[in-house]
Amino acid sequence: MPARPPVLIDLKFNPEGIARILKTAFPDRGSINLADPAAKSRDLSAIDYALLWKPDADLFERAQNLKVIFSGGAGVDSFMNLSGLPDVPIVRFVDSSLTVRMSEWVVLQCLMHLRRQREHDRHQRDRIWSQMAPPEAAEITVGVMGLGVLGQDAVRKLKIMGFNVIGWSRSRKRLDGIKTFDASELDIFLSKTDFLVGLLPLTPETTGLYDARLFAKLHRGGALGKPVFINAGRGRSQVQRDIVAAIESGVLGGASLDVFEVEPLPAEDPLWGLECVFITPHDAAISEENALFRHVEAQIARYERGEPLEFVVDRKAGY
Amino acid sequence: MPARPPVLIDLKFNPEGIARILKTAFPDRGSINLADPAAKSRDLSAIDYALLWKPDADLFERAQNLKVIFSGGAGVDSFMNLSGLPDVPIVRFVDSSLTVRMSEWVVLQCLMHLRRQREHDRHQRDRIWSQMAPPEAAEITVGVMGLGVLGQDAVRKLKIMGFNVIGWSRSRKRLDGIKTFDASELDIFLSKTDFLVGLLPLTPETTGLYDARLFAKLHRGGALGKPVFINAGRGRSQVQRDIVAAIESGVLGGASLDVFEVEPLPAEDPLWGLECVFITPHDAAISEENALFRHVEAQIARYERGEPLEFVVDRKAGY
Ligand SMILES: NC(=O)c1ccc[n+]([C@@H]2O[C@H](COP(=O)([O-])OP(=O)(O)OC[C@H]3O[C@@H](n4cnc5c(N)ncnc54)[C@H](OP(=O)(O)O)[C@@H]3O)[C@@H](O)[C@H]2O)c1
Ligand SMILES: NC(=O)c1ccc[n+]([C@@H]2O[C@H](COP(=O)([O-])OP(=O)(O)OC[C@H]3O[C@@H](n4cnc5c(N)ncnc54)[C@H](OP(=O)(O)O)[C@@H]3O)[C@@H](O)[C@H]2O)c1
Repeated sequence: MPARPPVLIDLKFNPEGIARILKTAFPDRGSINLADPAAKSRDLSAIDYALLWKPDADLFERAQNLKVIFSGGAGVDSFMNLSGLPDVPIVRFVDSSLTVRMSEWVVLQCLMHLRRQREHDRHQRDRIWSQMAPPEAAEITVGVMGLGVLGQDAVRKLKIMGFNVIGWSRSRKRLDGIKTFDASELDIFLSKTDFLVGLLPLTPETTGLYDARLFAKLHRGGALGKPVFINAGRGRSQVQRDIVAAIESGVLGGASLDVFEVEPLPAEDPLWGLECVFITPHDAAISEENALFRHVEAQIARYERGEPLEFVVDRKAGY
Repeated sequence: MPARPPVLIDLKFNPEGIARILKTAFPDRGSINLADPAAKSRDLSAIDYALLWKPDADLFERAQNLKVIFSGGAGVDSFMNLSGLPDVPIVRFVDSSLTVRMSEWVVLQCLMHLRRQREHDRHQRDRIWSQMAPPEAAEITVGVMGLGVLGQDAVRKLKIMGFNVIGWSRSRKRLDGIKTFDASELDIFLSKTDFLVGLLPLTPETTGLYDARLFAKLHRGGALGKPVFINAGRGRSQVQRDIVAAIESGVLGGASLDVFEVEPLPAEDPLWGLECVFITPHDAAISEENALFRHVEAQIARYERGEPLEFVVDRKAGY
């Protein structure tokens, strides 16, 4: 059996962790880590498999004979627009730990807004004993945009926590106990939603989707008065100046954001300073490297046995 | 049919709300609200039913012929030690909205500790973009003390959120997917617990239970390093100076407290100022007055039809 070419790695996150774990990953073929200066001049023309997250601009020119591309995250927007993207299968990262963590984040954010955590924080800081009587979860309708792997897990858990939950996706889904809407029914979906949760991929269609016009369509006068915007999909689906304006003018009562138009979020951004906004630095559901490498190994094994790859992206839909 | 004596109300919370809602509650017999100055000198000797929360010290002397006592909360500790407590059935408040709200609070607190919300808060305040990689819920064992109405709902929801969940109660319970322990197995239960959640009633046996000795028995070196103490049962089950000392010495990594030895928590109490402590002012699961009055009406109707009362307290156990 001829030597197998190593797996090409170009992951622009957690460089120390990745370098450490790569030492033992892919034992039967090894890897080339582009973060390693020694790899800068390597000939990549014989590489079959590449695992990518925000790869170098010239990556597809150097690695011209890829058979499969793996994404280092659940989304594939970090390289879908890179020039030279070959017409080969693109496999995204799907993993139970990613899903579980995302639902932790979504439920946590919904509960913090429901239970008015920021007011409790302020009272604690000021040593003020002031009981609150927030609505219970059932009085709040959480509308989840995106009912894929992440959205479906989130809606199930939100429902169990007592929220009234509805969902929206391109093609209509059937989910137990949850009213669902398809792409054409966006306005009616928004008009019922108190907490909007975004779990959409970034595509041309979802770019700039969460804007002033959309926020103005959300349900008003619900049990908490104003709607809340929660996004952990991708930052470029949101128009940040519209979020700030909507909060300042009272169109939105609060927000939770894990993703931003520009990351890291610049220190001077007004979002940092808004009391009713919870900011997390794109760590709602981090890709755990061990799980990521195991997933890639498993998919390569399937591919080489002639079995169909899983989690393959629809090139036309872009996700 | 002779006129029915009014229901006696002595509820030391939300006086305006109670006065307002009482106008329409108990339409077939009316009520006497002791918060109303006009009631101070009323003859209470013919009263059959009293609904109480921290009642006046002389209440049972004035109302000598009670047939049933209703508690305004899930616990009955607010009057169990009052002199003259008659030997009649005591019915506590059990209501789905109370249960749902308590589970919201418990899951919220567990998720805030798991996802290191206080560090995210600090980073946001300082405008620092700093990704974190907290463990996922499955790496944390939440041990719930008290598996009654509230504890059983909380363990189910914690489990669905992904936590490893164990439980402890006087008599052992059988709960799906949850390892349970009885009173004699406290030490082994504590040795497995990363997040301790207290949902116990206040009785002589549970008074001062959460103390330095107990905290020292919790699991150390788990995925978050140090154990966390979360209490929404009753404040007098905890020794607050021990909580402060355990946090300052690193025996505990954090706490969430809804209940306190003295309420309101005095402004000078050091707990207010500890960053890793979340304080809420005994509003984890407030008694919603409409639901409370409906529950009392329903139990009175059962009693007068000759059916057994529900949620009757075991006088000997004290809860
Ligand atoms: N913040 C983080 O840490 C983090 C972590 C992981 C993932 N993410 C983001 O979360 C996204 C979703 O992940 P996933 O695994 O759930 O993806 P997925 O399984 O591909 O699901 C995507 C969902 O979005 C819907 N959708 C896509 N385009 C749409 C459009 N134009 N209109 C309406 N609905 C549309 C899809 O509809 P159909 O069902 O009809 O196809 C599907 O329900 C990822 O793409 C990534 O950007 C963020
Ligand atoms: N913070 C708030 O807003 C709030 C709101 C509502 C209630 N609460 C508190 O929560 C408490 C629990 O409510 P609940 O409705 O769940 O009560 P419950 O149904 O009576 O359950 C009490 C649980 O505690 C266990 N227990 C009692 N004494 C014990 C002991 N000495 N050792 C071991 N286990 C013991 C019981 O064991 P067995 O199952 O063996 O009987 C039972 O599992 C209430 O009493 C109240 O103090 C607080």
